[in-house]
Amino acid sequence: MSFRATVLTLYPEMFPGALGLSLAGRALDAGSWSLEPLQIRDFAVDRHRTVDDTPAGGGAGMVMRADILAKAIDHASPAGDARPRLLMSPRGKPLTQERVRELAAGPGVVILCGRFEGVDQRVIDARGLEEVSVGDFILSGGEPAALVLLDAVVRLLPGVMGNEASGDEESFENGLLEHPHYTRPQSFEGLEIPAVLTSGNHRKIAKWRREQAERLTAERRPDLLAKRASTLPVEK
Amino acid sequence: MSFRATVLTLYPEMFPGALGLSLAGRALDAGSWSLEPLQIRDFAVDRHRTVDDTPAGGGAGMVMRADILAKAIDHASPAGDARPRLLMSPRGKPLTQERVRELAAGPGVVILCGRFEGVDQRVIDARGLEEVSVGDFILSGGEPAALVLLDAVVRLLPGVMGNEASGDEESFENGLLEHPHYTRPQSFEGLEIPAVLTSGNHRKIAKWRREQAERLTAERRPDLLAKRASTLPVEK
Repeated sequence: MSFRATVLTLYPEMFPGALGLSLAGRALDAGSWSLEPLQIRDFAVDRHRTVDDTPAGGGAGMVMRADILAKAIDHASPAGDARPRLLMSPRGKPLTQERVRELAAGPGVVILCGRFEGVDQRVIDARGLEEVSVGDFILSGGEPAALVLLDAVVRLLPGVMGNEASGDEESFENGLLEHPHYTRPQSFEGLEIPAVLTSGNHRKIAKWRREQAERLTAERRPDLLAKRASTLPVEK
Repeated sequence: MSFRATVLTLYPEMFPGALGLSLAGRALDAGSWSLEPLQIRDFAVDRHRTVDDTPAGGGAGMVMRADILAKAIDHASPAGDARPRLLMSPRGKPLTQERVRELAAGPGVVILCGRFEGVDQRVIDARGLEEVSVGDFILSGGEPAALVLLDAVVRLLPGVMGNEASGDEESFENGLLEHPHYTRPQSFEGLEIPAVLTSGNHRKIAKWRREQAERLTAERRPDLLAKRASTLPVEK
């Protein structure tokens, strides 16, 4: 069975969107994964197809109702469905490449896209939703975040990347930011490709790239180096 | 002049995508912002419209050429264009709500979407590209990240959010994750709305929400609390 993504959203027409093109789109056409957007309003119980109500305790905005969302989730993910249920939310655990790899190794995902002020906490608790954040910023809804998460996961599915090696050397796969890249032309506006890269000495090239990756990571993301140090085996 | 976004991409048909609907789409229709996707291949110089070449020093994948990208950037953003030039890249500085607010207060953005293994470092240096990351994971290209960045920025443009207050209370606007939300029905599968929220005591409600936000942030994102503590005025 290929990877199955079900997305619960108020904007099913946002899908597949960018995922219908390029790498993810070709994988979709090839059946390497499937994508089913479901309209949450189809689970509303009134003629206006209402999915939200005013926040208990007052305040701006509207909150998505627990009962309507529970119906949608139960339809999308009945008992026995082993797929994790994700809620895209800035309150969630930041998405990492490690979690992306885990998701890609599984049967699929059910993704709830929040809108408005947020989602009633009780459906998060009662349906065991895993809150996932794609960054410390606020979106108009969970949909753009879901597109990002699915793009990251789909490229790791078996057979999707033409050149599997390409996936291994990239940023985060070894806990470091990626080294700088260069290609022809040899000279660009007076800037040359670093000589070591055209030396033909593979050992020196590997060493240079490693040093550059470590330097960049130290400059830009000391937090990654700290995290990495804590997971490396200690020398005795 | 309204906010102008120019996106340099190999997949212009990915835009506006999700940004053509909902909040961002209505703002686009209303002229609160404009979006111009440009095909990078239009700046290639050979009949195959080649934009990439093999990496200097060897290795998997292909690298986008500095000379072709420079032509595309110079066309999109000639001398005098005050818009920042962003490169969506996992090597970049993580996007924050603070940077989103700065971008939304400016004249617009020029966004270069990387593909393949990456972009020749010399065009990043020569054109002063600001590398921006939407998270510690790898995408098939910069396009889904650009959609996320633009969604975050557009909702903060003047007049875009119906209820301006709604923007102020949310996660990160005060350095904390957002408190839990509840709405009707009063009882959901035996779970009640916390009594304080239906008490009508606005002072107690504000206190409860604050405590919940602090608790959630401490549990899930101690890094945010640490960052926040370092920017708060010290009591004397």
